[in-house]
Amino acid sequence: MTNEYWQGVDQIKYIGHQDKKSGLGFQYYNPDEVIGGKKMRDWLRFSVAYWHTFDQRLVDPFGDGTAQRPYDHITDPMDLALAKVDAAFEFYHKLGVDYLCFHDRDLAPEGDTLRETNRNLDKVIDKIVDYQKQTGMKVLWNTSNMFTNPRFVAGAATSPDADVFAYAAAQLKHSLEIGKRVGAENYVFWGGREGYESLWNTNMKLEQEHAAKFFHMAKDYANEIGFDAQMLLEPKPKEPSTHQYDFDAATTIAFMKEYDLDKDFKLNLEGNHANLAGHTYQHEIRVAREANLLGSLDANQGDKLIGWDIDEFPSDLYEATAAMYEVVENGSIGPRGGLNFDAKPRRSSFAANDLFYGHIVGIDTFAAGLRVALKMKQDGFLEKLVADRYSSYQSGVGAEIEAGTADFKSLESYAIDKPQSELIAATSSDPLEEVKDTINHYIIETLSK
Amino acid sequence: MTNEYWQGVDQIKYIGHQDKKSGLGFQYYNPDEVIGGKKMRDWLRFSVAYWHTFDQRLVDPFGDGTAQRPYDHITDPMDLALAKVDAAFEFYHKLGVDYLCFHDRDLAPEGDTLRETNRNLDKVIDKIVDYQKQTGMKVLWNTSNMFTNPRFVAGAATSPDADVFAYAAAQLKHSLEIGKRVGAENYVFWGGREGYESLWNTNMKLEQEHAAKFFHMAKDYANEIGFDAQMLLEPKPKEPSTHQYDFDAATTIAFMKEYDLDKDFKLNLEGNHANLAGHTYQHEIRVAREANLLGSLDANQGDKLIGWDIDEFPSDLYEATAAMYEVVENGSIGPRGGLNFDAKPRRSSFAANDLFYGHIVGIDTFAAGLRVALKMKQDGFLEKLVADRYSSYQSGVGAEIEAGTADFKSLESYAIDKPQSELIAATSSDPLEEVKDTINHYIIETLSK
Amino acid sequence: MTNEYWQGVDQIKYIGHQDKKSGLGFQYYNPDEVIGGKKMRDWLRFSVAYWHTFDQRLVDPFGDGTAQRPYDHITDPMDLALAKVDAAFEFYHKLGVDYLCFHDRDLAPEGDTLRETNRNLDKVIDKIVDYQKQTGMKVLWNTSNMFTNPRFVAGAATSPDADVFAYAAAQLKHSLEIGKRVGAENYVFWGGREGYESLWNTNMKLEQEHAAKFFHMAKDYANEIGFDAQMLLEPKPKEPSTHQYDFDAATTIAFMKEYDLDKDFKLNLEGNHANLAGHTYQHEIRVAREANLLGSLDANQGDKLIGWDIDEFPSDLYEATAAMYEVVENGSIGPRGGLNFDAKPRRSSFAANDLFYGHIVGIDTFAAGLRVALKMKQDGFLEKLVADRYSSYQSGVGAEIEAGTADFKSLESYAIDKPQSELIAATSSDPLEEVKDTINHYIIETLSK
Amino acid sequence: MTNEYWQGVDQIKYIGHQDKKSGLGFQYYNPDEVIGGKKMRDWLRFSVAYWHTFDQRLVDPFGDGTAQRPYDHITDPMDLALAKVDAAFEFYHKLGVDYLCFHDRDLAPEGDTLRETNRNLDKVIDKIVDYQKQTGMKVLWNTSNMFTNPRFVAGAATSPDADVFAYAAAQLKHSLEIGKRVGAENYVFWGGREGYESLWNTNMKLEQEHAAKFFHMAKDYANEIGFDAQMLLEPKPKEPSTHQYDFDAATTIAFMKEYDLDKDFKLNLEGNHANLAGHTYQHEIRVAREANLLGSLDANQGDKLIGWDIDEFPSDLYEATAAMYEVVENGSIGPRGGLNFDAKPRRSSFAANDLFYGHIVGIDTFAAGLRVALKMKQDGFLEKLVADRYSSYQSGVGAEIEAGTADFKSLESYAIDKPQSELIAATSSDPLEEVKDTINHYIIETLSK
Repeated sequence: MTNEYWQGVDQIKYIGHQDKKSGLGFQYYNPDEVIGGKKMRDWLRFSVAYWHTFDQRLVDPFGDGTAQRPYDHITDPMDLALAKVDAAFEFYHKLGVDYLCFHDRDLAPEGDTLRETNRNLDKVIDKIVDYQKQTGMKVLWNTSNMFTNPRFVAGAATSPDADVFAYAAAQLKHSLEIGKRVGAENYVFWGGREGYESLWNTNMKLEQEHAAKFFHMAKDYANEIGFDAQMLLEPKPKEPSTHQYDFDAATTIAFMKEYDLDKDFKLNLEGNHANLAGHTYQHEIRVAREANLLGSLDANQGDKLIGWDIDEFPSDLYEATAAMYEVVENGSIGPRGGLNFDAKPRRSSFAANDLFYGHIVGIDTFAAGLRVALKMKQDGFLEKLVADRYSSYQSGVGAEIEAGTADFKSLESYAIDKPQSELIAATSSDPLEEVKDTINHYIIETLSK
Repeated sequence: MTNEYWQGVDQIKYIGHQDKKSGLGFQYYNPDEVIGGKKMRDWLRFSVAYWHTFDQRLVDPFGDGTAQRPYDHITDPMDLALAKVDAAFEFYHKLGVDYLCFHDRDLAPEGDTLRETNRNLDKVIDKIVDYQKQTGMKVLWNTSNMFTNPRFVAGAATSPDADVFAYAAAQLKHSLEIGKRVGAENYVFWGGREGYESLWNTNMKLEQEHAAKFFHMAKDYANEIGFDAQMLLEPKPKEPSTHQYDFDAATTIAFMKEYDLDKDFKLNLEGNHANLAGHTYQHEIRVAREANLLGSLDANQGDKLIGWDIDEFPSDLYEATAAMYEVVENGSIGPRGGLNFDAKPRRSSFAANDLFYGHIVGIDTFAAGLRVALKMKQDGFLEKLVADRYSSYQSGVGAEIEAGTADFKSLESYAIDKPQSELIAATSSDPLEEVKDTINHYIIETLSK
Repeated sequence: MTNEYWQGVDQIKYIGHQDKKSGLGFQYYNPDEVIGGKKMRDWLRFSVAYWHTFDQRLVDPFGDGTAQRPYDHITDPMDLALAKVDAAFEFYHKLGVDYLCFHDRDLAPEGDTLRETNRNLDKVIDKIVDYQKQTGMKVLWNTSNMFTNPRFVAGAATSPDADVFAYAAAQLKHSLEIGKRVGAENYVFWGGREGYESLWNTNMKLEQEHAAKFFHMAKDYANEIGFDAQMLLEPKPKEPSTHQYDFDAATTIAFMKEYDLDKDFKLNLEGNHANLAGHTYQHEIRVAREANLLGSLDANQGDKLIGWDIDEFPSDLYEATAAMYEVVENGSIGPRGGLNFDAKPRRSSFAANDLFYGHIVGIDTFAAGLRVALKMKQDGFLEKLVADRYSSYQSGVGAEIEAGTADFKSLESYAIDKPQSELIAATSSDPLEEVKDTINHYIIETLSK
Repeated sequence: MTNEYWQGVDQIKYIGHQDKKSGLGFQYYNPDEVIGGKKMRDWLRFSVAYWHTFDQRLVDPFGDGTAQRPYDHITDPMDLALAKVDAAFEFYHKLGVDYLCFHDRDLAPEGDTLRETNRNLDKVIDKIVDYQKQTGMKVLWNTSNMFTNPRFVAGAATSPDADVFAYAAAQLKHSLEIGKRVGAENYVFWGGREGYESLWNTNMKLEQEHAAKFFHMAKDYANEIGFDAQMLLEPKPKEPSTHQYDFDAATTIAFMKEYDLDKDFKLNLEGNHANLAGHTYQHEIRVAREANLLGSLDANQGDKLIGWDIDEFPSDLYEATAAMYEVVENGSIGPRGGLNFDAKPRRSSFAANDLFYGHIVGIDTFAAGLRVALKMKQDGFLEKLVADRYSSYQSGVGAEIEAGTADFKSLESYAIDKPQSELIAATSSDPLEEVKDTINHYIIETLSK
């Protein structure tokens, strides 16, 4: 590269825990190491998010952007857009990830009409496609930003204004075409304003029907053009809207089932969004996994004492272990899923190269979580615990319940004369503290190697 | 009645707003007044909850019960159980409600075996049935307490112990039989411990399958004995469990659809539970209403700054207006639904007759909400607002979207050359502050008459 | 006015509840009506906030500004700043308020140096002072924005960079001078970034000492120039910082006492901030009132199910009644305090004239609250309730406790042989439901007149 | 011991991380190992809480107790109380802790009068004192339960009933006498009902004055009898009350300063209480530490997604590291402080010996936290980071600010002509992600040894 954007940073290497103290280098992510039968890079499929990493100015509702980026001196919007592609691919290379994700509006400036906007966008896509050919970088997913522009003030597919629905459809059409060009493995819908500000002025059912129509049209068009990406809905409970329709995994599943979308769509789940909905990240992944609807993961973390989306880079080994435990149980994140860092540094961490620290701690945290989860799996620690706990359904009355041969009358006969002492004796104590002690041990033991 | 329990209280009468200042008497609930085409008693179908009103000792996790009840001097458990029936029917009569609700374990003490327990219970049911014949009191719903006894420590239908499942089935069988005897119009399932303490030791999918089996068995047995009550699931997000499966209305609907229960079951929704899940009461009712799954309502209120279930008697005119607006839109609470006061006084409001104050403010608050909602409906205030807001779907491209004749290509043609200014001009501003100002006006205007 | 900005709006008049249905006009605010011994305008001293009303573009973290304002066509920053002053004074006049509030950075654009910035600002202040002379408009308070500019990324007075502290001091110096010029009755400090992102890199004690030094310097300089405004600190728990030092009223009082600021500073309290800290607005006002530290009020409301600051215009009659009850008990908001609408419309309510709806519902809600609170005070409703509740301290052992003549030994003698039944009999039941029923009655009764 | 209560458990030994896999045994707590200049037992001073460990039945608001304890067969209340002392001292011995804590009402049943209650209590204290002589066990603190009995329904020292205040004083008098007998190093006040249910019926100022009088009387009486324990207030924001006066550390400090209690009282802080107030545990400890008011610690953890007090045994290495970092900075928990496990197993972990698992994971988690904190301290990792961050206050204008020689005029001269670029250049980026990466490394590195 003739123009180096991220100066002072070489390619990030795997060093291993013992040799790393601080600074740039991976403790746990060794991409080509095979664990649990797969290379780490194939288990994890890390992706960098264009919006947070290259576009985010680190604004907040009370402050202007603080970000200092190596292309800040470029003033022409299209020149800047094209320069960012160079900077991005240099960043991917130095970080050593295999995937990127982007919104359409991250990449190029809007024109006054969609036709002009698309033209701007296509120039950037041309350059991305060239880079992909040279580097082998893949697109985990692309998406369309349908919440920033004022026209989307009351939603896109759920806007009360039909012209806005039409515009959103047209915008999405091009986004699907782009997805096909870049070979995106998934296509994600996050409906930031697909919700309501107030129920008093909202026809919720009509809005949800519109959303469903929109998703069906999207799938139909993707089929028509032969874009076979896995389609994903991303739940979030609220913010910016007062209440978003895709509140959490279960709510989104109810919607998908109601509108016959559960065959063609799966879920993209995020840790911070889970917390805002009152759930752990593990819970959301479990819900999706057990419904066979786990599609992909957004890797970030929230602060459970804070009521808005902070999109921190993941650093919590407990959360990553729990998330990766679900992934290991699932066999993979999902056939085409990966871990996209929908994460940004704090506003006070504004230096360009801080972006490497953020991704490194995020990558290592999930790599560590994978190592711990696989070790627990290999030892059968939790499988045995769970199997024992439900073993009463393997025989006797439990087996009859499972087999569907029991009914209320047969169960009454079985239970009606059992004394309380016998019933209590049948229940077993579940010492969760021992489980937590053991998980702490697994974390230290596995990660110190 | 030979023995008067609630001394110093006469039958509560409708006085009207203007004549009531404080104390006992209804400002807004005039049971036989016809508004919106129905008697108020038929719109509202108020019910008193046996557990909170007659059994609740006003304990909390840090304190012993403070309640002073007129039957506290009775020491023999069965004598006490029978005396409570007298006290309850005197209370219903004085309060002027038409419905009661009860858990099985509210009514009679447990024996060592279920057979003994059922025997105790049947004696109390005999007495209730006698009273029903004399008074015409109806049972809005009954239910079975499957969370208090230690055997249910890890759930009932979702217990890891098959014997507990069997016991729960047997207990429920009798509860359905009782429901039939008392002519309950609904049967409610609240799964307080049908959830998990920790995901680490939980097979969530298996537990949910067990719950689904249980509900199917229940429905089958109800059919078998000809108990044709509407069956209802009651969502709550957490407490006592860390996470309950029926988290909120949408989650419960997803479950019902997954396990083919949505034809035979509907929802019983509660305000405090809604808040604990991050929703307004109105939201939960709207979700159920639009899914045709609104069954019945538990009338209480929470404190949104408090993270546990406080089950306060409703007094907030805004919440009641919003809830009753949904009911008015629905035509009724549900064909067989009512408003059950799942509510209790504060622990510091321990005097027996305080129970009347609580029910009066609760009854009047919902009666007031009904009056305001009907007045808004009659004036078409919100209908017009909403119709205008979505009017762009009545013609042109909007009508094509509705008709299913539009697709991404036709919508692209429509939108691709529209300038931004035209798109912005198409969106209309929604002054919610004017709506709130108008609702305040409706409340004062309607309720001062 | 030669150029009318707010077209289609005449001066807002008092219409009264009975004649107002919706639209522009006051139901409850009749400025020159004397109630409780004072004109309503003197009780309430409403103020319009420059930042939300004239500067706010209605951005959010996921969207660009939607606001449509009558001066949007002006492109030169200083021309725009001066035009806004015209628009603002026309708005004040049409709304009929007597006070305004502003940040320094609301009024005029920043230059590259503070000297240039001050020069810009002074031109706008000249124009404001001219308008004040013509109209009699007063400034309730002014303040200094020390959180938006990137230099304040880690705080102003609590910045780890001494140059930033110095700059903040210089900025504030000019802001105090401006306060004197416009005759501001109060001066407010809201420390949006005076807190921490993480404790790991924070010397909290040093930062708080710096803040205290800063406040002392500010007071000293105000004294030096003869600017005798009441100085106010405004608590908020978090956002934008992870944790703000002035978390809530009590925390701020602890800080003021620790650093000897409680003689010269009081509190400016806001409803939405109260909720974010886990308190009601009434609680925060009560805490300040009882500490003799109530200075002024920011009038807005939050949504307790939402975890960030939404600054809605107040419309909740319960909250306003509770807040005004505290004010009535206090005799006034504070000798120099008022109600500043730190409030904005929703992003979807972007039309210029919607700003009138917002202020009208806000003004009427607090005017209504004042009417209800005064009526309850006049009837002695709550005073009697409270006096009765604590009456046992008027005589006997209670009076000894109050007088300081009791000690543990005398009290042991008094209590040691009292049986439990006697102790229980001494406690009285507090039926809060009756209180709530009565408050509902007061609201309807008072406001329908 | 003739009668072994905790069968199947031997004395818990230090095994070390490498040799421990799961089960009973310490990985990190090696009591007599000297680290950071002190024995671990002297740094940590672990204490077992009588109420949770020996009395807690594992009830919750929806369920009866599930606990199975080795003395459940004893029916006479005094026999049971005395047997529990045997069981407790056997437990302390097996666990290897040096301290216990108790409420008065944990130890012995109440009689009808306080005189009888005291008599019961004294018998148990006699036995405890005997055991102390034999074993050397010390009392970290004792306290008085003034929230469970119905007489305390509206508070003890803040009760509206003077007789209840008198009774509380008398009860506390004896509790102080007991504290002296057992040589308690601290005396704790947790005011679970010293708060309000509703502000409408509460004279908050009067109640707080009563509380202050009560604390002064307590201190006076302790002085009189020569009981020189450190007195501690324990903050909690709410539950059981709607709002507790001692909301958090800062609020309690404000109260102590207002009523001249900050010389004689310090704080006892708990992790779960911190979270319920919107703070981290580290924050609360920092606040107390910097105010020189850190007294002692209650060791437990909450679940930040749950809105009530769950009092889990600590297992989170991040929280323990952060808490112990504050302790290391403080030199000790406080001259007389310790770590009391105000913690209980989950209701589903009801077996007697599960109590050992809970304490072991709690002890090891804090022992691990101490090891990590000391290692970071020894390396100067955070000290250097913080010193660098604030270094601008060591010279130039920063030093003038510190010295008190700067004022607004001198700072204006310094700053008024600085261009924005220079100000921005003065601020430094703070890469928190690097800090978190390093802390993860310290945890794994330190704990794997």
